[in-house]
Amino acid sequence: MLLAEQMASSAAMREVFSARQSLQAMLDVEAALAQAGAAAGLLPEAAAQRIALACRAETIDIDRLADAGTLAGTIVVPLVNWLKQAVPADAPYVHLGGTSQDIIDTGLVLQLRAGVKLLQEQLATAAAAAADLAQRHAATPMLGRTLLQAALPTTFGLKAANWLLALDDSRQAIRHAAAEALCLQYGGAAGTLDALGDNIEGFLSAFGEALALPVPVGPWHTRRAPLARLAAAIAGAVAVTGKIGTDIVLMMQREIGEVLEPAAPGRGGSSAMAHKRNPTLGIAARAAAQRMPGFIATLLSAQDQAHERAAGSWQAEAVTWPALMLCASGGLAAIAEALPGLEVNAEAMKENLARIEAKAPSLGIAMLIARALQHHRNIEAGLLDDHR
Amino acid sequence: MLLAEQMASSAAMREVFSARQSLQAMLDVEAALAQAGAAAGLLPEAAAQRIALACRAETIDIDRLADAGTLAGTIVVPLVNWLKQAVPADAPYVHLGGTSQDIIDTGLVLQLRAGVKLLQEQLATAAAAAADLAQRHAATPMLGRTLLQAALPTTFGLKAANWLLALDDSRQAIRHAAAEALCLQYGGAAGTLDALGDNIEGFLSAFGEALALPVPVGPWHTRRAPLARLAAAIAGAVAVTGKIGTDIVLMMQREIGEVLEPAAPGRGGSSAMAHKRNPTLGIAARAAAQRMPGFIATLLSAQDQAHERAAGSWQAEAVTWPALMLCASGGLAAIAEALPGLEVNAEAMKENLARIEAKAPSLGIAMLIARALQHHRNIEAGLLDDHR
Amino acid sequence: MLLAEQMASSAAMREVFSARQSLQAMLDVEAALAQAGAAAGLLPEAAAQRIALACRAETIDIDRLADAGTLAGTIVVPLVNWLKQAVPADAPYVHLGGTSQDIIDTGLVLQLRAGVKLLQEQLATAAAAAADLAQRHAATPMLGRTLLQAALPTTFGLKAANWLLALDDSRQAIRHAAAEALCLQYGGAAGTLDALGDNIEGFLSAFGEALALPVPVGPWHTRRAPLARLAAAIAGAVAVTGKIGTDIVLMMQREIGEVLEPAAPGRGGSSAMAHKRNPTLGIAARAAAQRMPGFIATLLSAQDQAHERAAGSWQAEAVTWPALMLCASGGLAAIAEALPGLEVNAEAMKENLARIEAKAPSLGIAMLIARALQHHRNIEAGLLDDHR
Amino acid sequence: MLLAEQMASSAAMREVFSARQSLQAMLDVEAALAQAGAAAGLLPEAAAQRIALACRAETIDIDRLADAGTLAGTIVVPLVNWLKQAVPADAPYVHLGGTSQDIIDTGLVLQLRAGVKLLQEQLATAAAAAADLAQRHAATPMLGRTLLQAALPTTFGLKAANWLLALDDSRQAIRHAAAEALCLQYGGAAGTLDALGDNIEGFLSAFGEALALPVPVGPWHTRRAPLARLAAAIAGAVAVTGKIGTDIVLMMQREIGEVLEPAAPGRGGSSAMAHKRNPTLGIAARAAAQRMPGFIATLLSAQDQAHERAAGSWQAEAVTWPALMLCASGGLAAIAEALPGLEVNAEAMKENLARIEAKAPSLGIAMLIARALQHHRNIEAGLLDDHR
Repeated sequence: MLLAEQMASSAAMREVFSARQSLQAMLDVEAALAQAGAAAGLLPEAAAQRIALACRAETIDIDRLADAGTLAGTIVVPLVNWLKQAVPADAPYVHLGGTSQDIIDTGLVLQLRAGVKLLQEQLATAAAAAADLAQRHAATPMLGRTLLQAALPTTFGLKAANWLLALDDSRQAIRHAAAEALCLQYGGAAGTLDALGDNIEGFLSAFGEALALPVPVGPWHTRRAPLARLAAAIAGAVAVTGKIGTDIVLMMQREIGEVLEPAAPGRGGSSAMAHKRNPTLGIAARAAAQRMPGFIATLLSAQDQAHERAAGSWQAEAVTWPALMLCASGGLAAIAEALPGLEVNAEAMKENLARIEAKAPSLGIAMLIARALQHHRNIEAGLLDDHR
Repeated sequence: MLLAEQMASSAAMREVFSARQSLQAMLDVEAALAQAGAAAGLLPEAAAQRIALACRAETIDIDRLADAGTLAGTIVVPLVNWLKQAVPADAPYVHLGGTSQDIIDTGLVLQLRAGVKLLQEQLATAAAAAADLAQRHAATPMLGRTLLQAALPTTFGLKAANWLLALDDSRQAIRHAAAEALCLQYGGAAGTLDALGDNIEGFLSAFGEALALPVPVGPWHTRRAPLARLAAAIAGAVAVTGKIGTDIVLMMQREIGEVLEPAAPGRGGSSAMAHKRNPTLGIAARAAAQRMPGFIATLLSAQDQAHERAAGSWQAEAVTWPALMLCASGGLAAIAEALPGLEVNAEAMKENLARIEAKAPSLGIAMLIARALQHHRNIEAGLLDDHR
Repeated sequence: MLLAEQMASSAAMREVFSARQSLQAMLDVEAALAQAGAAAGLLPEAAAQRIALACRAETIDIDRLADAGTLAGTIVVPLVNWLKQAVPADAPYVHLGGTSQDIIDTGLVLQLRAGVKLLQEQLATAAAAAADLAQRHAATPMLGRTLLQAALPTTFGLKAANWLLALDDSRQAIRHAAAEALCLQYGGAAGTLDALGDNIEGFLSAFGEALALPVPVGPWHTRRAPLARLAAAIAGAVAVTGKIGTDIVLMMQREIGEVLEPAAPGRGGSSAMAHKRNPTLGIAARAAAQRMPGFIATLLSAQDQAHERAAGSWQAEAVTWPALMLCASGGLAAIAEALPGLEVNAEAMKENLARIEAKAPSLGIAMLIARALQHHRNIEAGLLDDHR
Repeated sequence: MLLAEQMASSAAMREVFSARQSLQAMLDVEAALAQAGAAAGLLPEAAAQRIALACRAETIDIDRLADAGTLAGTIVVPLVNWLKQAVPADAPYVHLGGTSQDIIDTGLVLQLRAGVKLLQEQLATAAAAAADLAQRHAATPMLGRTLLQAALPTTFGLKAANWLLALDDSRQAIRHAAAEALCLQYGGAAGTLDALGDNIEGFLSAFGEALALPVPVGPWHTRRAPLARLAAAIAGAVAVTGKIGTDIVLMMQREIGEVLEPAAPGRGGSSAMAHKRNPTLGIAARAAAQRMPGFIATLLSAQDQAHERAAGSWQAEAVTWPALMLCASGGLAAIAEALPGLEVNAEAMKENLARIEAKAPSLGIAMLIARALQHHRNIEAGLLDDHR
């Protein structure tokens, strides 16, 4: 793991996308493939069980496999060889009709499913904290600022309510995009489902069931837009945390002094100035947000997938996704930590507000906060989703 | 209009995003704002009608207004001045409680609604043509190619069915994203709904109705993710046309010769070689697809929106959207024209397929085509959507 | 011209990249091509003169030509046809051995030469103003801020000196990159210099001379890195103005109040709040800086240029460059205007500095300012350049 | 290390940017800082020697340090603590007047110096091979292709000569950009050179000498354009290898069959089709080229560096650089391996050329190849550089 990337990601996400877990995800797919094959009568049930049992990544020499994969152009060639050697008698039944991309894509989907779950948990934590701030500070007056200039009175609760709406929107968007994108990939070498005999539907449905993944209308070797949209939804969430980070960083300016990130031993120090309290979490979220557009641009560029399976584009995707998920986990972790313990200085807010002429805060503020909180409760209760 | 941009966009989209139509869209918002104000009892009905009548962009001196807008930092300042001068007696009722961004964002939403409609029509044309190709060539054998190498037999119908699935996916995605993103923006100077008195709900609902736009939970001055996701959905559609363009360009190689773009007088000539027939449409789609990731990266970066309204980010969005929509219209136009008249050379496909050892095409091909066509019919019938 | 793009660019740059000037640039290339052909004995001198005389874009029907160009896949096909019709007797001598890309690329180079000159003038203005601020405020104490937190005392002069160094660096970088990138493009249909007989060197050197452009080692139809590096150098300059804009916006915060952008009638107003003085110029620079990375990403992606001339990539470049130059002109204009008249509030700086414990400003500050100013004088005197 | 990133990078580059080497680079800076301090009389020579001796990363618990760094917001805080504990008696002399960014930036510069050297070696290998191909195949006729259509005759030597020019251009560009960007970073907490007493020049010059790095005009905490230009130059090189990869992939199409990547045991196999020979190296180069624009976009966005040191932007850079260098090493490795052993099928080239009407190849071809080779020899001899 690169040092800076390690520091800018969550431990849980690093585990999901570790080299070994990446191999395990692919082996999970190989195991399910064998089981689905057995269900469709393409290999003996006992062989499928033996193959599935051998699909354990613990003992693989990762460096050696990676080198062989670089040479072969895909990790799946040496991985399948390794698996065949592990079950020599059942070797003919291994990797049944699959192509590299079937294994790598479905493996990635499994990792993304786990990774999205982590992101959603972080977003839920942040949203709960934002809802709490919106409620507690619904009537805490502060200066509304536009173009970084003093504008009109608002309340800190409304600012938090806007964070909340943005966080909740991201949660819904990721949920929707994940539901569309995270499905089984299986097409065989040219996406034609060769080698499956006449029980294609049964095979596919068993395959999907074994991994608890939906079966799509067809293989998506070259149809990458749903994955790119999932990435865009995640990028949107990171952008939201970046915006919250920006607000925090701006409010933590010495001359403003309206909030402080939660204190913790060892947090936010300076190597040169002992007295300084840095907005470490806000900065981490901002840094993550700055990195996401580049990842998304890459995933969008990589949609240029020639013919039945692409020569380069898809390989570019495969390297980009883990980095993107690590980056997202770091940005979301920062805000999920910053919001629950945020120290709010209502006095400073009042003083800064006094810089503009007194004006009663808008009646709309309370209404807007109430609507955001109601919306949040709806989402939490799953009401909105039931009606989608 | 820049020359190259003009050539790479559709006339209809250029009209939607012309300077005058941009101003008209903002004036439509001002008109609706006045009408909603009247409905909420904030100004006389007659004043609202006079304001609405004056909201006609035809006579505005665009260059002068633009210069004043650059100076002011927003076009809305001189536009509102212009409007007030057009209805001097009603000037106090003009731009009621609105802020620049309310007008610009809602104006953009109106333009995007019109622009998305154009894109959807282009996608529908392309999808219908792809469905036709999938059906007609369901059993036209050709070489499946992966990593640009010969792989296994497929049929041209399956290739077209994959185009179809990708186009239909884009249509659904744009539809969904537009439904989420295209709504009223109204918050006032600091997003606090000042100046609306106690009939806020009535005002907002009248405002939305006047423009046939839904009213969101709250103003989204700094919550830009839904717009960015709409952009990503559109980028996905353009990427799909880029992929189709790539396939066409590759199949049109002299040594492959499997398809030809539809002929037209003046199309695809060379300034140097009279004998050449260039894949003009495929190239146009590819060029559009290459430009989209940059736009999306900008829109994602621009989500860093400080405090109540941003100092720079939002302005970057405003310039990017029209260019993005023009670009998309050009890419989609190319494929909407290429697919309906695509000349398919089944003989060449057969010959190229003969380069690999004979192997019966997979039984799965027919099934995959049937599923894609059924999925297409479902979408056309709106069946899927009713259940969303 | 799109409204938002018009507002975010300089009038001079809009003129350089107007549709008509784009055509004129290409016609200038055609004229020079004819003259070089005459010099190399490939056509009569008189024919060349007649062709050159006809190369005037004033009377071209741009919309019609653009439509024909879209159909042909390149504007050069109808442009050459138009030119041939203008000099029917000399038609065989028109567009001698040239290919579309020769004309379009060299035309772009001519426009970029003019555009870069404009950018350099803007940067020179900004640098002169920064040097002046550095000198005048060398000893104006202010708070140094890192991570947006109070750090150590600095002076406003040192802040301006750092702006100066960054501006001067950009000027040098653009100068260097332009010298490498802006050269003649001529290769003929496949980059093989067909149709030139045996006086190739003489022809090329006459061609270059006619346009005052250097002749490169070979045609660069598919070697686009020097152009991309010029773009990156320009993006760097815009980023510098974005950073200056950020500093201004932050210092203009009501609670900080250390600088004000120069006042002008009509500048920085608000459509909703009459009392507001917005950092319009800083915002414009920031918005431009946010848009550049997307353009650069596109130009870098577009370097994937297949075989002898690309199918899409190069077309993507052609649309991107004018937009990039307009964007840059807007960002640079803002800072070239903001710095000369920047109002500095030394009193506020002193007050904000008092928030941290008194500490003598570093002795290094004066030295750093002196070095930056000396470096600036060196650059102005061209001393550094003579030794490159 | 992420699995896919490991497969898409060179082992040598992974070593340069490993977590431990990253820490070692920072410790090298701390050691040099102590030595420079001693040279300037700020600490005893013996203390500097003891500190320098302790600057060995071998025994650091990386995970623990990284966690502390995440908490602190910078790795330098725990790293300096670790170092102080290693030399308790000399602790007051450790990290003399430095700020986190001084250490991290200069450490990065040291890594980049090593990494750029690796890239240049790869480019030199590729260029030598391209020169060899240009020479050997100067007169090997083949079809010139534009817009992927048959255009005019060329020779494979000219194609290789164009690769050569592009590779040589990249080498020069990286060399130039590295010379500008790779210099000492030292400014102290606010870039004011506090804590250095009155021997600033002597200190800086000793610091630079200790690391063999030039001393810049001033600290560049917020002036990041030179680094971004180095990144762009590297991206240009990767784009060149991507273009070569594209050409190889296209020429390796079964129906074209003009070249083959060098064979090696285990290379280019398929997990599904034993007979396939995949253009593995071309694909790797293409995939790397697709990823670079995103990195560059991030580095350009991250130039928005507020005040004296930025709150997020600079942190985004720090994560991006290692990933960028790994990516570049993978792309360049692929072409440095593909070109030397490229199998050229002159017979197939002849056959494909026969598809267009016979026409003598241009006389210009030989001249263009000769010029490219001469240019290459000049670069190799360093002639051009002496005159820069």
